[in-house]
Order: sequence, then structure tokens, then C-alpha cells
Amino acid sequence: MTNTTQRQARVSAYLDPMTEQPLRQFKDIGKVQQQVQKPRNRKLCEDLQVAIRRSGLKDGMTISFHHAFRGGDLTINLVMQVIAEMGFRNLTLASSSLSACHSPLVEHIRHGVVCKIYTSGLRGPLAEAISRGELAEPVQIHSHGGRANLIHSGELKIDVAFIGVPSCDEYGNANGYTGEACCGSLGYAKIDAETAQKVVMLTEELLPYPHNPASIKQDEVDYIVKVQRVGDADKIGADATRMTSNPRELLIARTAADVIEKSGYFKEGFSLQTGTGGASLAVTRFLEDKMRRHNICAGFALGGITSTIVDLHEKGFIRKLIDVQSFDRAAAMSLARNPNHIEISANQYACFDSKGASVDMLDVVVLSALEIDTRFNVNVLTGSDGVIRGASGGHSDTAVASKLSIIVAPLVRGRIPTLVDEVITCVTPGSSVDILVTDHGIAVNPARPELKQQLETQGIKTVSIDWLRERAELLTGKPNPIEFTDKVVAVVRYRDGSVIDIVHQVKE
Amino acid sequence: MTNTTQRQARVSAYLDPMTEQPLRQFKDIGKVQQQVQKPRNRKLCEDLQVAIRRSGLKDGMTISFHHAFRGGDLTINLVMQVIAEMGFRNLTLASSSLSACHSPLVEHIRHGVVCKIYTSGLRGPLAEAISRGELAEPVQIHSHGGRANLIHSGELKIDVAFIGVPSCDEYGNANGYTGEACCGSLGYAKIDAETAQKVVMLTEELLPYPHNPASIKQDEVDYIVKVQRVGDADKIGADATRMTSNPRELLIARTAADVIEKSGYFKEGFSLQTGTGGASLAVTRFLEDKMRRHNICAGFALGGITSTIVDLHEKGFIRKLIDVQSFDRAAAMSLARNPNHIEISANQYACFDSKGASVDMLDVVVLSALEIDTRFNVNVLTGSDGVIRGASGGHSDTAVASKLSIIVAPLVRGRIPTLVDEVITCVTPGSSVDILVTDHGIAVNPARPELKQQLETQGIKTVSIDWLRERAELLTGKPNPIEFTDKVVAVVRYRDGSVIDIVHQVKE
Repeated sequence: MTNTTQRQARVSAYLDPMTEQPLRQFKDIGKVQQQVQKPRNRKLCEDLQVAIRRSGLKDGMTISFHHAFRGGDLTINLVMQVIAEMGFRNLTLASSSLSACHSPLVEHIRHGVVCKIYTSGLRGPLAEAISRGELAEPVQIHSHGGRANLIHSGELKIDVAFIGVPSCDEYGNANGYTGEACCGSLGYAKIDAETAQKVVMLTEELLPYPHNPASIKQDEVDYIVKVQRVGDADKIGADATRMTSNPRELLIARTAADVIEKSGYFKEGFSLQTGTGGASLAVTRFLEDKMRRHNICAGFALGGITSTIVDLHEKGFIRKLIDVQSFDRAAAMSLARNPNHIEISANQYACFDSKGASVDMLDVVVLSALEIDTRFNVNVLTGSDGVIRGASGGHSDTAVASKLSIIVAPLVRGRIPTLVDEVITCVTPGSSVDILVTDHGIAVNPARPELKQQLETQGIKTVSIDWLRERAELLTGKPNPIEFTDKVVAVVRYRDGSVIDIVHQVKE
Repeated sequence: MTNTTQRQARVSAYLDPMTEQPLRQFKDIGKVQQQVQKPRNRKLCEDLQVAIRRSGLKDGMTISFHHAFRGGDLTINLVMQVIAEMGFRNLTLASSSLSACHSPLVEHIRHGVVCKIYTSGLRGPLAEAISRGELAEPVQIHSHGGRANLIHSGELKIDVAFIGVPSCDEYGNANGYTGEACCGSLGYAKIDAETAQKVVMLTEELLPYPHNPASIKQDEVDYIVKVQRVGDADKIGADATRMTSNPRELLIARTAADVIEKSGYFKEGFSLQTGTGGASLAVTRFLEDKMRRHNICAGFALGGITSTIVDLHEKGFIRKLIDVQSFDRAAAMSLARNPNHIEISANQYACFDSKGASVDMLDVVVLSALEIDTRFNVNVLTGSDGVIRGASGGHSDTAVASKLSIIVAPLVRGRIPTLVDEVITCVTPGSSVDILVTDHGIAVNPARPELKQQLETQGIKTVSIDWLRERAELLTGKPNPIEFTDKVVAVVRYRDGSVIDIVHQVKE
């Protein structure tokens, strides 16, 4: 059907008043052709190889993953295997974090498939290989909020994001709790879905359109591929997110709960976050009793959400849960049934340049440490041998933004002091830390004299950090200093993108 | 506390391997100072003037609004009044649509406060003033999907978005259904919140943090100001979204429902949208009976969602509602209680360059027309006198993307034919339109011969569009052609941003 009409004459005669040029004219290609250009099932790919090919992945590009499955992740190894087989080289890998289960990446590093890594943390054989200097460029360690900041700043440009989900519809609408691979919040995947050039969704199940609620939305997804498994939800709540039964950790947790109770921040509607690590997560257990006794209900709990926290929520002790990452399958499943269990993105959680990050609304955070020093600087990245075995996580984000940040740690671990003169690697600056709770005493940062006074008035005895430091050395003796080579294996980025520390290769 | 330490030495010695320059080093400004930089209540402004000042608005910038309140909107006039009083000039106004209630804009145009407008439609005194050529530059008319496309293309850059909501918390988490000004879906506001440089939220109520579910999220909002009223939800369901009792419109609606039933698309799980206008919205009424009789349940209803559609959903005849705009207060309230009433953004609804637009999944759409011509081109913008009195809306988006697009219209209105040789203004090209249903007969687009055959086989009589055209002229006589001046008052943009038509000023 031709349309050489008055309409066409009008359009052709019109010049844009700004440019005095004609504007682009409508060209009628017809309904059928327009629909063929956008076939309804265009996203679904036959297999991963097809999806990767269609994504336009090229050597040197940046690919990303989320770590909602933690140690149970099956997506990264699966995708990297196919990428390696397809012959790609020199990729930058930007996973929101990496775990011990990602040891196959060592081979991809050796073969030049991966040449650079951005991650919150590293553990296991991969961490050891990188600590030995096997990665061409130093690994960039960021906090959870810092990752969003690196994306906003343009330093971290994701070309292709691979997002593993339990289920999605043929358009890519997905959440993290419908299906067997129930990982809960997709908080870290959200920012990749929003900003990546191309998004490939890996799903265990295909559901009818429209699948809802959608945490990742249809207008964020380019390609979909069905795979056997994306992750094992039963392995989320292991290691760093396990609930402890260690008596020393329980003692520290109980003391930390007492500190919170007496801190002046334990009030109706207060808010709380507990980080990974046994003692830290266990604090919530001891708070329940205090909340009941004082008839106090928390306004919200933030962060990694555990089943213990969900339990407190369901008992009515915590009004809302703000969840960037679900720390076990039970917590993940709560997202589906509890309307006040709220899923947020990493940008809403903790990003320094976000228009609104929940950490800035946080009253109390309880955090772990591999090491802490007498200036209250905290190391959550490298072990006492200088080898990487941890993660930055939300540590520096929450410590500085919360009204009260408490570090919980045993004073010594075996023959190794936790409290030292200077941490091997600084992830969170001491100026962000308010209190250290150990099994040998409580030290308040001298920058918070009013807090020390408040605790003492309430009958909580505190000691100086130097006194604790001496006590640690009494118990362990002076450890030999570690020797490092000149090779830099990791750059630790603060939440605003600046460099807060450098990790060198350990001399063997 | 100074930190001239091994850490600082390490960081200072490190040069980025790429640039061989030192990276930006962490500067410790301390916890207190960092928290002061981001005070917890920094978003809340004392009044609108403060919010506008803090937004950094300058002469010549682009400001935006959503039209979820339709004729009940109170936000635009309120904000524009303050902006005018503050002395701003030469602003581009990008409201997702404008209604008869926005007549005060005429004064702002006359005083040079507003010099350019992007909108889906115009009605009332504002439309008349613009049709008379009172706006300096031609108004840019876009479809709902087309607006998102103009934003993506960079043509429409929103400097400050003003978003009226019934309630929000102090961080800006908001939805459209908690509170008195219950407008329902914030689908059009979402894209502004996501892309505007600065977002000012106007709210009738302030709620405790965190308010959920959040359709607009804390990381999208810069400033918040509490105002008396943002909109009257009872006026949403008026005019174009009212339920008709006009017998001729009901006849047309009933015929359209018959056409759908026999079209071959009326199957278990089919999907449906009805546009604004009495006959169009009334089609759902007549479908209920057919769905019950054939034991058919629709997969989803899309678009402007009415209380009639909500009723069908709650009776189990439509599984899911995909809602970019709630067409009355009752529909808006359903969003709060029906978990399968899904809120989507304009980008998810209908955008041409979206990664996933629901219109592309749509089976059947029923749409109105002010005029249609023998090539099936549709005018939903200008009246038979050439004056603007309508809106592009989702018309062209859904017509082309749906499998079956049906135009419903009376053959004549008073002494004016609806079916003409050539529409005064083309908004939706005829190639997108499949069937015209009038009160005098049904015409199938000759481009869809299989559809004509299907209907006839099923006992639905069809006629040629030329036969209908002759019949219209018999009833009305030949109308006098309208005379136009050379002045262009509106540019009609197709959903891909191209110019599909030009509206000239009418000679008076």
C-alpha cells in the first residue's frame, strides 16, 4: 500500500526550527515486518555457546557474575568453561565476589582466558594462586558498595553480564526465590542487569509469561539459556555465613549483644546489621531476649539476611528486612512469603555515590575481622601469612555509615594474635570503627570518648586497645614479620574508588 | 589520628600498570565528617521553592512530570506556579501527558516560562492555545513507548523530574497506592526517576523508613517535599477512561467482542489490551460471558488497567494484570492487594528500543479513533476542526506490536464522518491496523486477507472500507476541507522517534 499523501508532503516540507534540517521521516515497513524484526521468542538460545556468540563477546571484554549462591555457585565455572572452549582471551572477570568453589578459574588464568579480576573477595586455591602472583594484573578488591561506585565512575564497564537464576519467563523476568536454586535476593545482579551492555540469563526453569515478582526485569535481559543447574542453594549457608556453635564465638557474641544493649542505640525502632562470621551472626540470637525484656522492636535489619534474622522478623521483633543477599536457603525462601522482607540492589544497599544507600540509615553494625590493629584498622582480606583468604564485602561501607560499628574477634587465633600493631592489609580504616569486642575485653575507639563513658556508666567495663594488644602478645609471643616480594597481587579499593591498600606477593 | 604507616608507603609506591601513574589514594576524613556529608535527612526540603533551588534548575532546562492522575493532577500546576514565581524562563516541559486541567500552562507559555513541550497529548484550553500557535516551538507529540525512546536516544534529557506520589519515606521510597492520592501504577514516572539528573518527589504523606513496596526507589530520589495535595484520584477515571453507557458505543463494543471471539486469537491464555474511549474499554464487559462459556482464561491484560479488568482478574478470568497506568481509583487500589497485578514502566510497556516490551507479547488490542481513513491510518490527536484534542498514548505502540489490532469507532459523529479519505493527522499508520469495527459494519485491512476469511468462515460479515466510507458520506455529506496556515504547531513522532506527521495551525 503506497501512501504518497498530503501527510508525506507535510512531513517532507517541515524543517526543524533548531537545525533548519528535515527530521528523520517515518518509513512504513509494515506490521508483519516489524514483528519479524522482534520475534516473540527472540531471547531464548539453544545453548550457552549460542548465547555467548549472540552476546557479541570479544577478546578483551569485561564479563560479570553475581555471587548470591556463594560457595554453591555453579554458573561461573559453567560459563567460563564454555568461554574457554570457544577460545576467548584476555577477559576481565568482574564477579561481585568469588569463593573457594571457583578454583577452576586458576586454569583459565594460566591459559590467558582471564587476565584481570574485580571481586569483593577470594578464597581457596584461586586466592592462593593469585597470592602467588599468577594473575597478569593485580586483582582489584572492592566493597559491595564500592563495586557499584566503580561501575558508575566508568572504570568498570560490563560488556556481558551472566546472571544465574532459579527460573524466568521467555522474556527474562526473574526473581531469586521461585524454583529449586533458591538464592533469594538478586541484589548484586541487579546493578549488572541495569548497566551491562548485554545480559545473558541462565535459568534452571522456564515459566509462562509474565513471571512475577520480577527482581530482574524483561527490559534488562537480552538472551536466555536454559541450563541444568545454576547453583546449589544448600551451600549458601556454609562457611562464613554458618551459625556458630563455637563457645568462644558465642561468648564474644553475647558480650557484643550486651554492648549494643547498653550503647544508647538500643531503642525502639533501631536498626541492625550483622556481617559474615560466626560471632557476628550469632549476635542476633542474644538480642532476642533483650528485645523481649525491654519491649523493643527493631525498625529494620539490613544486609546479608540469615534465617535467624528471618525468625526474629516473623516473631515480630524486627519490622522489616532489607536484603541485598540472602545468607542461607531459609532466608532466601522468606523473600517469597514475607511482604516486609525487601529486596534491594547493591546501589540501594551501600554505594558511596548512590542517591540513597540503606547503610546511611543504619544504627548498629557488627562486623568480623581477620586482623585489627591498635589504630582500629581492620583487615578482612589477608590471613596472618599474607595470603588472600577473605572478602571486603560490606565491611567498610557499613562501618563508616552506621552510627555504631562493632568489630567482634577473638583476641588470638591459635598462636596468632588478631590484634596487632599494624594490619597486613587495611580494608576498613580505623576511623570508621567504634568498638572492638574480644574474648579478653572491650576497647572503645578513643575518637568516641562519649561512647566509652556511656558504656562505663551502664556497667560495661572497657580497656584500652593497647592493653589488649599487650595481652595478645603475652599469649602468642611476637610473631615473625612476613616477607613480601615487590610484585603487587591485589589493589584494595575503598568504597569511593580510592586505593586504601596494596597486597604484595608473599616470599616463599 | 595520623596513619603514616607501612600501608601509606605501600600505596604511595604503587603505580597503575596501565598508566604507570599512581592511583587516587584513600584520604581518611573520618567517620563523623563522612556522616555529616551525608546527613540522614538530607533529602527533605522545607518547601517546594527550596527543593527547586536545591535541584539546580536553570533557565533553558528540561523538567518532567508523570500523568498518572490524568484529569485529577494537581502537581504540574503547583510546581509550575512556583517555578514561574521564582522567575525561571525558557523551560522545556516534558510531561508524559497533559490534560484539560493544565490550562494554567497557557499563562506560563505566554510569559515565556515554558517554550517547548513534549507530551503524549493535549486537551482543553491548553490544546486550543497551542493549536492557535501560542507556543514558540511546535509541541512534540510522542507515544507512551516513544517517550522512553526519545529519552534513550538522548533527544529528551530530563534535568529535573517532579514526581507526585501519595506517600513516601524520608529517603524517597514510594509507590502509587499507599495513601489518599491513590493513582496506582507509577509506570510513566519510573523512567523519569531512573534517568533524570535530579528527582524531586512531592508527597502528601511522610512514612517511616523503609516504606515498601517501592515503585520509585531511594537511590532514584534527590529531594523530597511535603505538599497538601499531589492529585485527586477520583478524577483519574473520568473522560477518556470512563465506563460508557452510550448504547451506540455498547453496540460497537459488543461487535468487537464478537470479532475477538471469532478471530482465531481467542484461546486459552490469550492476552488483551483495551485503550481509552468508551467503546474500547467496554469490550471487556462483553468478553466475560464468552470467556465463561468457552472456559477460557486470559494469560494477561495489559495497559491502562480499569476496575472492570480488575474485576475479571479477581473472578479468575484474567491471570495477570500488567499495569503501566491505572485508569481509575479502584484499579489503582487493586495494585496493593492483588499480587498478580504487576506494575511496569513505560519502557517495559511499549518502548521500541526496549530489551523487552510487553506490547510485543500482546495478542489483541482494541483502540479508539477520532478519525480513520480508507488506508486504515488513524488520527487520535486532532478533532475534525483540526484542533488538538487527544493523545497518542499507547496507540501506535500496541497497534503494530499486537497480533490483532482492532479499531472501534462510530462511523459518524453528529454530522461529521469518522471514516475519511485521508486523516487530518496520522498517529498510527494503517499498516499497523487490522480491523475497523463501526456501528455500520466491520472492515478488515486488505493486508490481512486470512483474517477476513477467518471471520467470514465464523459467520462474521465484513464489508470493504470503501463501502463504509461511502456510507459515511451518505450520512454526513461531503465535509468542507479545513484550511491551515503555514505555521507548524505540532510534530507527531512515531514510536521510533521518526516524524510521522505535522500539525499546522488552523486558519480562523
